[in-house]
Amino acid sequence: MKKRLLVLTTGGTIASRATDEGLAPDMSGGELAGWFPSVAPDYYEISVLELLHLDSSNIQPEEWRLIAQTIYDCQTSYDGIVITHGTDTMAYTASVLSFMLRDLPIPVVLTGSQLPADHPMTDAMENLRTAFAMAASGARGVFIAFNRKVLLGCRAVKTHTMDFDAFESVNYPPVAYVDGKGLNLNTRALPRVTDAPCRLHSELEQKVFLIKLTPGFDPEVLDMLADMHYRGIVIEAFGAGGLHFVRRDLVAKLQKAALRGITVVVCSQCLYEPSDFSLYQVGKMALKQGVLESRDMTTEAAVTKLMWVLGQTDDPAEIRRMFTCNLCGEITEDLEERNI
Amino acid sequence: MKKRLLVLTTGGTIASRATDEGLAPDMSGGELAGWFPSVAPDYYEISVLELLHLDSSNIQPEEWRLIAQTIYDCQTSYDGIVITHGTDTMAYTASVLSFMLRDLPIPVVLTGSQLPADHPMTDAMENLRTAFAMAASGARGVFIAFNRKVLLGCRAVKTHTMDFDAFESVNYPPVAYVDGKGLNLNTRALPRVTDAPCRLHSELEQKVFLIKLTPGFDPEVLDMLADMHYRGIVIEAFGAGGLHFVRRDLVAKLQKAALRGITVVVCSQCLYEPSDFSLYQVGKMALKQGVLESRDMTTEAAVTKLMWVLGQTDDPAEIRRMFTCNLCGEITEDLEERNI
Repeated sequence: MKKRLLVLTTGGTIASRATDEGLAPDMSGGELAGWFPSVAPDYYEISVLELLHLDSSNIQPEEWRLIAQTIYDCQTSYDGIVITHGTDTMAYTASVLSFMLRDLPIPVVLTGSQLPADHPMTDAMENLRTAFAMAASGARGVFIAFNRKVLLGCRAVKTHTMDFDAFESVNYPPVAYVDGKGLNLNTRALPRVTDAPCRLHSELEQKVFLIKLTPGFDPEVLDMLADMHYRGIVIEAFGAGGLHFVRRDLVAKLQKAALRGITVVVCSQCLYEPSDFSLYQVGKMALKQGVLESRDMTTEAAVTKLMWVLGQTDDPAEIRRMFTCNLCGEITEDLEERNI
Repeated sequence: MKKRLLVLTTGGTIASRATDEGLAPDMSGGELAGWFPSVAPDYYEISVLELLHLDSSNIQPEEWRLIAQTIYDCQTSYDGIVITHGTDTMAYTASVLSFMLRDLPIPVVLTGSQLPADHPMTDAMENLRTAFAMAASGARGVFIAFNRKVLLGCRAVKTHTMDFDAFESVNYPPVAYVDGKGLNLNTRALPRVTDAPCRLHSELEQKVFLIKLTPGFDPEVLDMLADMHYRGIVIEAFGAGGLHFVRRDLVAKLQKAALRGITVVVCSQCLYEPSDFSLYQVGKMALKQGVLESRDMTTEAAVTKLMWVLGQTDDPAEIRRMFTCNLCGEITEDLEERNI
């Protein structure tokens, strides 16, 4: 029997056409379906649900909640769900859906393209081909299918603005790749699943701010964020865990922010490998102020996870427990064990 | 005759030792010199000047100016200068020195290490070996020597927190590599030089803020930065040039910021490849608001270049001209030509 797949369309380059103002995502779900690989209906029973018509730069927490709710409502009626989405914020959406939807019974696979589906050189068909196969694979979780690879959603980062190989799986192997044998699942890299029923927890705290540190960054900005009632701050520090404290005492301001009830998370602005704030004097000083380490999470996962955790609880101990615990593959377990 | 090299020490992991508070950069210049490759004095006449003892997280605009002034004062007395420096902010320092010191008559080579010089597995000797050879090569400009490669300073990004191969040359080839033939210069990748005398322009505007965009980013933050008298804002947008304008109208706020005299630069949060805001509707809207594109500059180069440009002039036309012009190899020329 053919696998039943649902395609949720949200816009993005894949559904874009040239307009006087540049490419705009105005293709209907039906029009996009006209660009699906022609062989697809022979293998899959495909339904299309037109959800949004947005450049993914405009996909924000409100859209995340809508997408999550739609997946939750449809998860028992399909064998897999494909979401067509712009590439620009796809890694953020994939990360947040991984936290919002736990114990998904089916694959949810985001895909898109670097060139519109109607472009003669488009990568859309190839990406849809991989996405359909992954959605029909039975592998449970949230994934991104792109350039003949499938990545765990909470590990993906868009690293290239133009290349068809736009995404990297950071600090984690791809969960599948395509070759002459078709789709090859790396089963050891698939996220752990339980038999618990699927849960939807889509509440988010929007007052979370990401700071990518630059030399000379003025710590007064932290006071200003506190005055603006931010509840969470993620700091992309230097290297494995560097924060300045000479002249501009960022470490003291972090303590002050913590006292005002703000959850501060530190991660690295280096793309690869974990942060480790226990290595250097400057990092150790920060840890003493009660900041949480995101370890080898991507920044996309760290920011969306903090938004999600703060949407679930106000309790500091619970925030710490939920944030530092590996929920869906976003933190490498060995590293966790090493640090215990 | 042996080449005369000056080593400026500033601290960093290379000069660090274990303390109760973690690694701290307390080795003296003389102590660090004890770890230079023992063969070095046979080939180079090396002087050491102990400048700073800082973790590079604490190297900020004040230190940049001190380092630049020291290089300027010493550039006629040596054949090359090596700066030992922490890796965490080395790419920022290398970028800003490239703008501050124009028409350098000698090589200025930053290096450091991922493990302290006194660690049995240290990479310090290898990096110093490459740095000394590059400093003696006569190639003019600011470079980073690391892991048997030499990168143009304004193209370097620290991409790995732990790997000895910590730096990448982004959107630009390495200018030299080491193999069985010794140091191999890629002369075509060396920056253009003129016969003009070396100039030092070290004035910087410190009120420059980097925003790494996240979905749902609140544009009100721009008003707050204007109220805090920021003069420059660099926005790491999504993908090739995505900024949201639905519900949270970042594009309108950029216009307002521009009207308040703030210079806004847009770049991509993707590590590789150029931004191109003319491609998509959302990007085109931003360009109409007078924002400047950083094209294929690294974020490190874009932030330090904006600080430097705003330190040189208040004139909007001159700011635009200086920022968008390739000064020292930080922007790919072909791309410039393509966009003209």
